This record gives sequence, structure tokens and C-alpha cells, in this order.
Amino acid sequence: MSINTFGRAFRVTTWGESHGPALGATVDGCPPGVQLDETMLQRWLDLRKPGQNKFTTQRREADAVEILSGVFEGQTTGTPIQLMIRNTDQRSKDYGDIAEKFRPGHADISYWQKYGIRDYRGGGRSSARETAARVAAGGVARAALDMLMPDLRIAGYMLRMGAHEIARERFDAEAIAQNPFWCPDAVMADKWAEYLDGLRKSGSSVGAVIEVVAQGLPAGLGAPVYGKLDTDLAAAMMSINAVKGVEIGEGMASATLTGEENADEIFMGNDGKPAYSSNHAGGILGGISTGQDVVVRFAVKPTSSILQPRRTITRSGQPTEIVTKGRHDPCVGIRAVPVGEAMMACVLLDHLLLHRSQVGDGPRGVIG
Amino acid sequence: MSINTFGRAFRVTTWGESHGPALGATVDGCPPGVQLDETMLQRWLDLRKPGQNKFTTQRREADAVEILSGVFEGQTTGTPIQLMIRNTDQRSKDYGDIAEKFRPGHADISYWQKYGIRDYRGGGRSSARETAARVAAGGVARAALDMLMPDLRIAGYMLRMGAHEIARERFDAEAIAQNPFWCPDAVMADKWAEYLDGLRKSGSSVGAVIEVVAQGLPAGLGAPVYGKLDTDLAAAMMSINAVKGVEIGEGMASATLTGEENADEIFMGNDGKPAYSSNHAGGILGGISTGQDVVVRFAVKPTSSILQPRRTITRSGQPTEIVTKGRHDPCVGIRAVPVGEAMMACVLLDHLLLHRSQVGDGPRGVIG
Amino acid sequence: MSINTFGRAFRVTTWGESHGPALGATVDGCPPGVQLDETMLQRWLDLRKPGQNKFTTQRREADAVEILSGVFEGQTTGTPIQLMIRNTDQRSKDYGDIAEKFRPGHADISYWQKYGIRDYRGGGRSSARETAARVAAGGVARAALDMLMPDLRIAGYMLRMGAHEIARERFDAEAIAQNPFWCPDAVMADKWAEYLDGLRKSGSSVGAVIEVVAQGLPAGLGAPVYGKLDTDLAAAMMSINAVKGVEIGEGMASATLTGEENADEIFMGNDGKPAYSSNHAGGILGGISTGQDVVVRFAVKPTSSILQPRRTITRSGQPTEIVTKGRHDPCVGIRAVPVGEAMMACVLLDHLLLHRSQVGDGPRGVIG
Amino acid sequence: MSINTFGRAFRVTTWGESHGPALGATVDGCPPGVQLDETMLQRWLDLRKPGQNKFTTQRREADAVEILSGVFEGQTTGTPIQLMIRNTDQRSKDYGDIAEKFRPGHADISYWQKYGIRDYRGGGRSSARETAARVAAGGVARAALDMLMPDLRIAGYMLRMGAHEIARERFDAEAIAQNPFWCPDAVMADKWAEYLDGLRKSGSSVGAVIEVVAQGLPAGLGAPVYGKLDTDLAAAMMSINAVKGVEIGEGMASATLTGEENADEIFMGNDGKPAYSSNHAGGILGGISTGQDVVVRFAVKPTSSILQPRRTITRSGQPTEIVTKGRHDPCVGIRAVPVGEAMMACVLLDHLLLHRSQVGDGPRGVIG
Repeated sequence: MSINTFGRAFRVTTWGESHGPALGATVDGCPPGVQLDETMLQRWLDLRKPGQNKFTTQRREADAVEILSGVFEGQTTGTPIQLMIRNTDQRSKDYGDIAEKFRPGHADISYWQKYGIRDYRGGGRSSARETAARVAAGGVARAALDMLMPDLRIAGYMLRMGAHEIARERFDAEAIAQNPFWCPDAVMADKWAEYLDGLRKSGSSVGAVIEVVAQGLPAGLGAPVYGKLDTDLAAAMMSINAVKGVEIGEGMASATLTGEENADEIFMGNDGKPAYSSNHAGGILGGISTGQDVVVRFAVKPTSSILQPRRTITRSGQPTEIVTKGRHDPCVGIRAVPVGEAMMACVLLDHLLLHRSQVGDGPRGVIG
Repeated sequence: MSINTFGRAFRVTTWGESHGPALGATVDGCPPGVQLDETMLQRWLDLRKPGQNKFTTQRREADAVEILSGVFEGQTTGTPIQLMIRNTDQRSKDYGDIAEKFRPGHADISYWQKYGIRDYRGGGRSSARETAARVAAGGVARAALDMLMPDLRIAGYMLRMGAHEIARERFDAEAIAQNPFWCPDAVMADKWAEYLDGLRKSGSSVGAVIEVVAQGLPAGLGAPVYGKLDTDLAAAMMSINAVKGVEIGEGMASATLTGEENADEIFMGNDGKPAYSSNHAGGILGGISTGQDVVVRFAVKPTSSILQPRRTITRSGQPTEIVTKGRHDPCVGIRAVPVGEAMMACVLLDHLLLHRSQVGDGPRGVIG
Repeated sequence: MSINTFGRAFRVTTWGESHGPALGATVDGCPPGVQLDETMLQRWLDLRKPGQNKFTTQRREADAVEILSGVFEGQTTGTPIQLMIRNTDQRSKDYGDIAEKFRPGHADISYWQKYGIRDYRGGGRSSARETAARVAAGGVARAALDMLMPDLRIAGYMLRMGAHEIARERFDAEAIAQNPFWCPDAVMADKWAEYLDGLRKSGSSVGAVIEVVAQGLPAGLGAPVYGKLDTDLAAAMMSINAVKGVEIGEGMASATLTGEENADEIFMGNDGKPAYSSNHAGGILGGISTGQDVVVRFAVKPTSSILQPRRTITRSGQPTEIVTKGRHDPCVGIRAVPVGEAMMACVLLDHLLLHRSQVGDGPRGVIG
Repeated sequence: MSINTFGRAFRVTTWGESHGPALGATVDGCPPGVQLDETMLQRWLDLRKPGQNKFTTQRREADAVEILSGVFEGQTTGTPIQLMIRNTDQRSKDYGDIAEKFRPGHADISYWQKYGIRDYRGGGRSSARETAARVAAGGVARAALDMLMPDLRIAGYMLRMGAHEIARERFDAEAIAQNPFWCPDAVMADKWAEYLDGLRKSGSSVGAVIEVVAQGLPAGLGAPVYGKLDTDLAAAMMSINAVKGVEIGEGMASATLTGEENADEIFMGNDGKPAYSSNHAGGILGGISTGQDVVVRFAVKPTSSILQPRRTITRSGQPTEIVTKGRHDPCVGIRAVPVGEAMMACVLLDHLLLHRSQVGDGPRGVIG
């Protein structure tokens, strides 16, 4: 049983391999009447697209998305939306060595052991190219959210590249779009540029931490057990290639706090809604949104495809070394930023639809 | 739409509130022919049971589990297994204040905003008592795993309490059962005892980090996208009350590594299976198990119910203070250890069943 | 993978065997704020209860339902509702012969072949006692429907017993409650009484056709593909023990019609809504409700447990004869009427929740 | 919440509208290592393809299927298989009238009332063209079944067209492929040809009954409750456009039988497996296969698009008449035969995968 679908009410099934003819996403459950066209989706795909600067893989893909179904005269009809992206720059000769050798830190070996067959060209299904389909689906989610929750804002950025972390006190939302790293700290962006250039030239790679924040989400989305908003966010982020850790709000550091420190004290805000003295909870209590910013962080490990030789074995069990030439990202975390945003959009829309299924659009628990 | 179920092939639906007549788990999809009786489940529940020493809540619950269905003459029949635990020490008068005031850092407020109605006695559905049902269901999973993967071992322990972390070089598996903290470092266990006693007396609380390891899992469980082993583990752990972060293998720290550092180099082991120079991956590559130890960590925030007064509001929006008297855990992370083990067992059994659905019991990709 | 759950947004998982300690239903996804208590559920269970007259099994069960969770101060909280019914009159000695021999027409043999283990007492999980849990869950669905669609009415009745079918021109809704057969034709009810008494005395049994109608359902519930209202109704009814056929509207007879005959012509009704000249469609077009009555019929085969000897084999493959003594229903279809109503209620509530998830409570396609 | 997916372990999501650029199926959960190419799928699509003789719609579609993912070097990889069929002969000008008027007996009106928007060209998502995607997915299921259950045979045929039913005593399996009606009775095939020609010329249409039989299915597939083999078959067939009734084995007629008549007595066959004196059960007892032939029938209503004028209303509620010119099937049941076979293949593969998930490939309950 293979599960290539995420979401419950807004369901996205991605399909396609790195070097097949195409990849895409089948999106089911989108509300009808949402304004949608290919331009709106392309905008997001272009942000993830490889080959835009020297810091990402030099594979050149147009990543042009086609809407094959579910949209009529510029509006969603409520039926499945098929999004297709043709692969155009596959150049699979680069990957010859990988057919026989397993890259350390890569899915090559586990994938082979599971299925006994794999499309070894570019990692097949385990390639980060799969995330293009997520970004396309996330574009659909954003369009629906624009209709249903127009005040919602989702923003992702990088906090850390290898040993180098931003300074929160220099955080500047406007800086994010002004460097190739989604870095909200202009000083650190320069440092990263220099650092990553060195890694790239030496054929190495490095990990990253990304944070995604949603502002303007109303209180009440989620559920106390299993169908929790934080559970689904954790699953969504952990499902992105190369992610090894996920945090909500204070995250792993919440272990170091006392109850007094961790308590986000509650006031009545000027807008007549509850307000909080802090946001250790990351906007989620008991699996349910509080109305504060929803804050998620995740760590992306370094790309396993590197020019540095590593010891490994062949499919027949012979010891050998491997150097992965192909075209790879020295810091794949950079391109994970729009992917994280897309996953956030999908999860929030899903929970909005889940909520109105059970509780409806009408009044809920009032405070004040 | 409320989702109180986890798992795909082995599905657990928990039900019940902290102060209702009973709580439990409906377990569907268990293979037939598994040896199972109440004693086998009680063993695990007793490890999670409150009131066993001064470091956990003084609520006294027998947590006696009854099997109401799905077992005949000591064996599972393949039909749903209903596990029921009666609540016996509810003492709900302790909770009077909470009906009107929201505890900072607790689900009280989000829960109210979502549903407009809640069982405020002891947190209702958002109480950590719900985890008793998980431990019972985990006991069923362990029994099935004993039949299907007899070499599998699952062990959980605490790594950190507040500011105090164990020393990995003093790690001693035998120490875990010899202190009330599941601490694998006997020196640190003494320190924690003193530290927690102080917090308890002052009516404070503190967070914790727990690690759960599965040894002996074969390679090949999981899937490259969404139905990933690590995605499901992350969701399972994040769904536990008070968890704010989840890590697989190197976790958040993988962001600090280079590709060379992160690569777990591959050898052929003496047993004719692949072996690895290290385990940064935590036993999972591309969402699929490698045969190495599966390593998961999660952070538990401090209990929000504390004796220290915190500012908050009432349901009618009036500013006030709250002191939570009831009976609470100064470090609820302690009792999260057997819960984490139970979730690990459920996820691994689920993935074993998913794997044999798609790929069968027969030979898969061979190495060597 | 065993699936004991039906429904998507309103999900019912039944559990328990005929002769275990208890059986019940775990109901997830119910909206919060629904008025609910045990008396409301008991009313429906009493209608299905065995032993009420000579035409049903003489097993005497109180079928007293307990609500173990999900209801607080007389209202649903939005969390799982656990419904438990204790088995009290199990008398399993009656079933001794069945442990070794397979009843022709019964699940004994297929069940054994599947699992290699079974609770042979009274059919275990394949017993019609399982339907008590459905009726209890249906009571929850009705309570929610009363809140959300107060104009909805669900009514079931028997159309046929063996060779004897009612006359539609004598249809009298008031007659249904005035005979033990849910028969809307008082003349036929008398005939059935005589007929069934003869069958009962000879130790035989007979099949039946039941019709369930929902009046007052708004247009727009369902979906054009797979998640169709008629697909889900067909599955719900076919999932009831002993059901072998399901029809919507004209049903199997629609094969005999021409397009002109089958067309339900459309007018504007006096209430400003579309009205129809006929209802061959059974209230569903393209999987979506039209606002007409939803009409479902199903056939229940005769009970396989009969006093007439039938040839069969033992578990060791020896030829033998079997006579099933126990206590059985000569026409199990009678007690299937409230079960069919319950399944209708569950499916309609589910589709209402699914609809408002995708489309919301707001205005949809207007006519006129 | 829209559900365009069927199946649990082998999951098919269809997408696309009658007059959009393309339609197709996303197939998830297929076992790895199955031989598969486009030619194998095209064979089944060609059987359903319109425009092959005067008895089906004159729309000319190549229905050429492309495999976009999930297959590498002629074998399935275990990842999602995307099947795309381009629409080529859309000629949507034929449908102009339908944008404003609702066809009686068609999904036009319910669809509009649900979504408030629809792709009115050719019925959009509610068009029978959607079934091309099912046939393609069924081709994948058949390929997997050929690997996993090589003795399985699936055959569909028509039993009835309008008033004219075949004679079972003239049943000849070889006749099925020798007439355009999938008719196993050569005498009746001639009669149908004449009958349908008359209906076609008069612009009328007529219903049909189809039977699909699976031979060679082992005992033990299915489950006693909800995840029943017959429940899933009923849902699968009822989900096909225009189907209004589904029967298993004796079907609706089982209501007329006594327990003695309905009992399929059991013997030991010469092959050492249980054999039966008859097959009223249609190969399924208690939701689980017995090893006998699985027999399913379903009724297809007449096409609602007819040249005979029918009274209806416009979107603005004005009374009017409608004559549907377009290109339609006088007996759409004919082309439902390969669709029914495809659905049977998908359900059986799904249940095989479900079974081995829970019970494994190993020995089960032995008889003899």
C-alpha cells in the first residue's frame, strides 16, 4: 500500500518521477468558484524553479504547469484539478553511476530494498523534483484561501545555513525577496553567499533551517486528538525531501522551559479578541489554532549528491567509492522554502474545510 | 470533521474524556492469530500509570484495561479489538475554576473557541489521560509485532529535563528501569530527582526530551512520498499531548552538517547485509527504513497547570489570574516515555502491514 | 487490512461479537452541540430488539445502550461518542454444532477460510447482532440531523416477504407501526402473519424486500463521481447482513424503460423550487440529491440457520448434515427495517457534512 | 469534500471532464514489478471506445492512453501511475442548449444546485466519458492480477436490453465477442440489433442489465463488516454513470426464496476444495469470497439525452421543452460492460492487497 496523497478534505496526490515524461498533482476537494488560472500557479512555481542562480542546481526546467481539468471559464468547478508539468531537461546520462552504486545518505538503497526495482534516473520518485507538484498544488490552496480567508498571509524564510544563523533582531520581512536565500537578515545573506559559494566550488553541500509563518488564521481550526493542526503540519513538513526535524512554536527548546516561562499569558486585545503576551505555543494549543501566528520550523539535511568521494557498495554488494557528478543543489534547503509555504497553505485550507464540515460556518465559542 | 484515528492498515481510534465514565481505544486491522490477553496490555499501562511516585500526578487510577471484543480463546480473531479503561478517581471538584478561566498554555481556550462547548473537567478530551488508550493500543501492536517481527525491540528514555541533559557517554540501557525518569544516565537521574523535587514543591513544572529507538526493523518499510515512515512517526509523536518538536536521526542539527559529514557510508556487514559507518539518517532514507536503528526524539513542553499565578481572562473576557490547584505532573514528559514507545509500535506495525499489502512477503531488492 | 468503519466525515466504527461481553459503535465526527442522551438512542434500539414477538428470534436482550464519551451535560462535545451495549443472553451452548460444521449460506466457511480462527459462538462478528451498533449510531445521526435538517423524515417499511408483495395502492404510512412487520399494507400484514407463522413452525425462513425513504433532503448533497450519494447508500445497505441487492428509485427495472419513460420532467413547484412529474431517479441524479424523496430498496435473503437439514462438510472436510437449532429469525428482513433507516440517517448526515466542507453553508446554484 | 477516488489499497482517482483538454486516472498502490505498457491498456480502452458501430455515440475519440509515470523499462515501480487520455473530438457547439436548460433524468440540475457552477459542455464531470479513465485503471488492475492471481478470469456481458432478456439456456460465452452488444445469446443479439436500430432512428434510448463474473478467485477475500467484498462491488458498480441497481448472486430475487432454497449445500470437490450445489450467494458469504464464481449484476438506465422533446425548466426557472441533439448512445449499457469488468478488476485487486496486509501470504484456515 503506497500513499502518495496528503490532506483529508483538500487532498493532493502527487505523481511522476524526476526523469519521466511529466510529473504533477491531482487535487481533489477544492471548493467550487475559486478564481484560478495557470498564471496564478506559475508564479509560485517560478519561485521554486531550479537554475535561477549559481546557488541552485543547474538543471534548467521551465516548470510550466498545465491545468488539465477542474477549471472552467477561470473558476474551479469543484471537480478534480489535474496539474501537469512536463520534464524537459532530463539529461539522464549524468546518472549512469547511480544505477549500480548507492549514494550514502540517499534513498537509493532503501528504495531498492523495498521494491526490487527503481527508476534510478535522478532518484526517480524520491527526487526533490516531486516538490514542484506540491508547489503547484499549494498554488491552488492559496487561491482557495484567498477566497475563504482573505486576511491570511503565509511567509517562509531561511533561518540557518550550516553553522550560520540569522540574528532575530535584524529580522526584516522585506529583505526576504532581496536575496537568493529567502533570508530575512540582509547581513547574514551576504555571509551565506560567500559561504555557499565556497561549498559549491568544493563540491560539498550543507543543511538549513526554514521557518514558515501563517498570520491571520482564525481560532478554532484543528482538533484535540490526531487530526491536530500541529500533527498535520508536522507530517506535511516531514514529508518534504531531506527534512529531518519539525518544530512548532518553541519547538525542541520547549523542553528547557518551566511552566511559568512557557505560559503565554492571555489578555483581551483592542480588537475584542484574546491576545497573548508571547507565542511559545506557535499559535496552536491542544491541536487547535488560537488566532496567534502559526509558526513552524523544519531542518533540511545537506544534499547527499556531492563531489566528495564517499565509501559505499554496489548492488551486488561490492565495496566501492562514489562521487555524484550530476547537477545538484549545494543547499537544497533554499528551494525548500516555497515548498514549505505550499505545504502550509494546503494544511490550512484542509483544516478550514474540516472545521466547517463538523462545526459549520456559524458562531462557535464566543469570548467576551 | 473530527479525526480521532491514527494508522492506515493498523488503525487506532481513541475515545473518552478525562472525567467521563471510561476511555479506550478501538483497534481495527490487527492480524488474526496474535496471542493477546489483558495481562499483556496491563503491563504497559502500569508503566504509564499516574500516582506511582511523588514525581507524577497524585491522581490514583487503576487503569485496568478490559478487552471487550476481537479476542477469542486468547487469540485475536482479525475483528475490531475494543479496549476500555474505566475512570475511577475523577474528583472533578478540583477543576471548578477552569470552567470559567482559561489556563495559559492549555487547550482550554482554543477548544472553547472551536466547539463552543467543552467538558472542562480535567481538560476533557485534551487531557493527557487520553494517552492511556494509546498505551493500551500500543500493547496490541507489540503483541502483533512479537509474532511478525520477533527480533524487533523498542526502547524509550528521557534525554533532557529542563536545563539538564544526559551525557551520551554514560548511556546505560540497564539504568532506564532503575529510576523513576526512564533516565539512561544514573548520575543524571539523581540530579533530576533533586531538581524536580524543587520544582514540584514550588508548584512549577518543566519540559523534557524523549528518545525512542527501534532495533531490528528490516529494510524496506515506508514509502518515498507522504506515506513515509518518518512522516508517520513525526505525526504520531507530534499528536501526543504537549509535544512541540520531533526529530529523526540527526534532527534539527542536520542543518549544521555538510554533505560529507551527514553521509552514512555503506559497507557490507558480517551478516551479509549492508552496514553503515554512522546513523545520521536515524534509520530512514527517502521515507523507507534502511535496517539501521530507527531513532526518533520529541520535546514535551512543561505542564501548563501550575501553582504559580498567571494572568488570563474569563469566558466573558474579564482579565483575571489563575492558579491551577488540581493534581498535575511537574514533568509530564516522564509519563510520555511509554506513550512514545506505544506510538512507535503502532506506526511500525502499520508500516509492516502496508508493506506486505503492496509488496507481499516475498523477496524484494537483494543486495549482494 | 480490516475495515469496520463506514462514513467519511461522520464515521462509525462498530465492534463486538454476538457472544462476547459487549458490542458497540465508536462515532467520530459528530457536530458539537447536538442534544443527546441514552433515552433518545434506546428508542431506536427497542425497535430492532429481538424477542418482542413470535416472529423474531427468542433471544432476549435488553440492548441497553450506554454513552461512555463525547456527551457532556446532554450535548455532544464534538469528540468521539462511544456507545456500548452489553450482551446479556448469550446462551452459547446452543451453538456447539457450528464449531465443527459450516452452515450452508452462512459466513461460517468463508470466515474460517480467511482468518483460520473464528469466534463460532453465534456467528461472532458476522452475526446480525452487529446491527444493534448501527442502530445506536443511527440514533446519533438522527439527533444531529434533527438539529441541522429539521424537516428531514426517514421511514422504512417492508414491501415483500417471500412470494408476497404489498399492493402500492393500499400503501398507508400509518399502518407501518401497527403490525410486527413494518408493513404499510394492512391487508398484506395479515397475510404475512399467517405465512410466517407457518414457516416458523416448520423451521424454515424466508427473504424480504425493504424500502427506506428520506423526505425533505435539500438538493445538492453528493458528488458526481465515487463520493456519490447513491454509491454510499448502496454500500451502506449492501453492508447489512444478508443483503444481496440494492436499488435506487426505479432500480433494476430501469433497464426496461425507454428514455422518454425514465425522464422525470421538471416544473417549477408552487414553493418556488423545481418539482418533478415522477421520481424514477429516486431523488438522485448524477450522484447528487435533487430535493425529491430519496428512495432506496434492498433485498434480504432468508436466514441460513434453519431447522431443515442441509448437506454440508465439517472443518476436516467430512460430509455431514446440519440442522441449526439455536434461536433465529424466520424472516430476518423484519429487523432489518430499523437498520436500513439507521444506515440512511448515517449516510445523509455524512453527506451533509461533506457538502458543507466543500461548498459551505452559503448560497449555491440558484434556480429561478 | 469531494471524493474522486475509489479503492483502499489499490486506489484510483479519476479526473477530467468530457470537453476539457484531457481526462485520466491516477493509480496509487499498484505492486511493483508488474509488466505494463500502453498497448496492454489500449486493448481495454478500444473495447469501450465510442463510434465503433451505429449502436454507440458517433463521437470519434481515439482514446489513446499515455502512461506518464510509475512505469520504468516495462515494469511498474510501485509509485503512482498517471494515465492520460487526450480529448480530441469535443465539438462542444452541440451542447449549447444545455447551458441554459436542464435535461430531465440528467445530472444537469443537481450538479448546478450543488456547485453553482458547472462545465455544461457534454455533462462535464458527470459525462460517461469519465468511464474511459476507469477502463484504463482497470487495465492496470488486470495486469497486476495476471501476476498475482494468474487463474482469475473476469467476463462481462449484457443480459437484458429494455424488454428483451437473454435465455440462460442459450448462454454461449463465445458469442459475447461476436456481436456489438456483448450478448451471450446469439439469437437475442439479432433481436437486439433490430430493436435498438428502431430506437436509435426514433431518437429514443433504452436501459440494460449487465452481469460481470469473476472465476478463479480464491476463498478468503473480503471482511465480515463494511470492508465486505460485496459492499465494495456494490459501491463500484453503483458509482458507474446511470446505474440504478446492483445485485450479488441471487440479488433482489433472494427475497422470494426460503432458507432451504437459498442454501448452497457444501461438498468436498475433486480438487480437495469445498464445492457447492448451487451459487445463490454469488460467491460471497458474510462479505468474504468462498471460492465460487463471484457474480454481480447491475442495471443501467436509458440515456437521458434523447431526441424526444421533454418538458423542463431553464436556469432562471422558466418552463420550456428540451430536445438533446448531440451524439449519444441509444443504449449506454452496451459500453458499460467493459466498465463493469474494469471495476470488478479494481475491486478484486484491492481486496487481494487488503487481505495480504492483514493476513499475509501464508496459510489460513484449512479445510480437510
